[in-house]
Amino acid sequence: MEPRPLSAPDEAWRIAMSLNYRQRDGTVIAVVQDVETGEVLMVAHMDPLAVFLTLVTGLAHYWSTSRRRIWMKGETSAHYQYVVEFKSDCDGDAVLLKVVQIGPACHTGSRSCFTSKYSHSLSSPLKLTADVLKGETLGGEKDEHVI
Amino acid sequence: MEPRPLSAPDEAWRIAMSLNYRQRDGTVIAVVQDVETGEVLMVAHMDPLAVFLTLVTGLAHYWSTSRRRIWMKGETSAHYQYVVEFKSDCDGDAVLLKVVQIGPACHTGSRSCFTSKYSHSLSSPLKLTADVLKGETLGGEKDEHVI
Repeated sequence: MEPRPLSAPDEAWRIAMSLNYRQRDGTVIAVVQDVETGEVLMVAHMDPLAVFLTLVTGLAHYWSTSRRRIWMKGETSAHYQYVVEFKSDCDGDAVLLKVVQIGPACHTGSRSCFTSKYSHSLSSPLKLTADVLKGETLGGEKDEHVI
Repeated sequence: MEPRPLSAPDEAWRIAMSLNYRQRDGTVIAVVQDVETGEVLMVAHMDPLAVFLTLVTGLAHYWSTSRRRIWMKGETSAHYQYVVEFKSDCDGDAVLLKVVQIGPACHTGSRSCFTSKYSHSLSSPLKLTADVLKGETLGGEKDEHVI
């Protein structure tokens, strides 16, 4: 499989310019979802150039708030995200990317960055579970963040 | 169906205090996903008290960056979110809520806030579609935001 552009450059720039960059460092929030399973993999930030580069290359690019520069997901890890669908929300300050994730999405080695879980079952009587608080990890994945 | 707490108050406060409130106005990003379909419904912000109230009531609460106050989703619309699962990410600055959504999630009346779509098909030859740019809406939903 190869990444494919979602847009020609002029359209990509028009879309990039239409968003509302009111989040940290002048960005929009990017929610990244596995296109096949629907699992939410990670949350990141995009500045206008990251949006443009994502649309014209089909490879997810983000703004790093810690390194203060654009980065392409996978540029060092080869854990690329091939973007299949790009949506913006009702007020234009968040976008949703549906991707084919190559390898794990999280720098910890987990498939998803969201591994610290606190939940109850929909169908059972009230039964609180807090996997991480009990020191368990989910699905045998590495998990460096413990709530 | 009734909302159910995910946590006792002391645990809820400990979880709330463990997160990294480095987003706008001292918040974490909250991604909200339909527990049954996996559809991403909206993105919002939570301050520590919103996290605490969500966990102890089982009803999603957020920090409004425009009104600068806590609000419970559905407090005026009755479009409540019953929270079934609460996860935090690897660096604690984003959370993922899986919810039972009562009515539409978006203030525009759409099921999801993410309605402006730009995509290609995984399997077909390169075929760019930009539904909103062509003036179409998705699934007959109202859509006040056009990119």
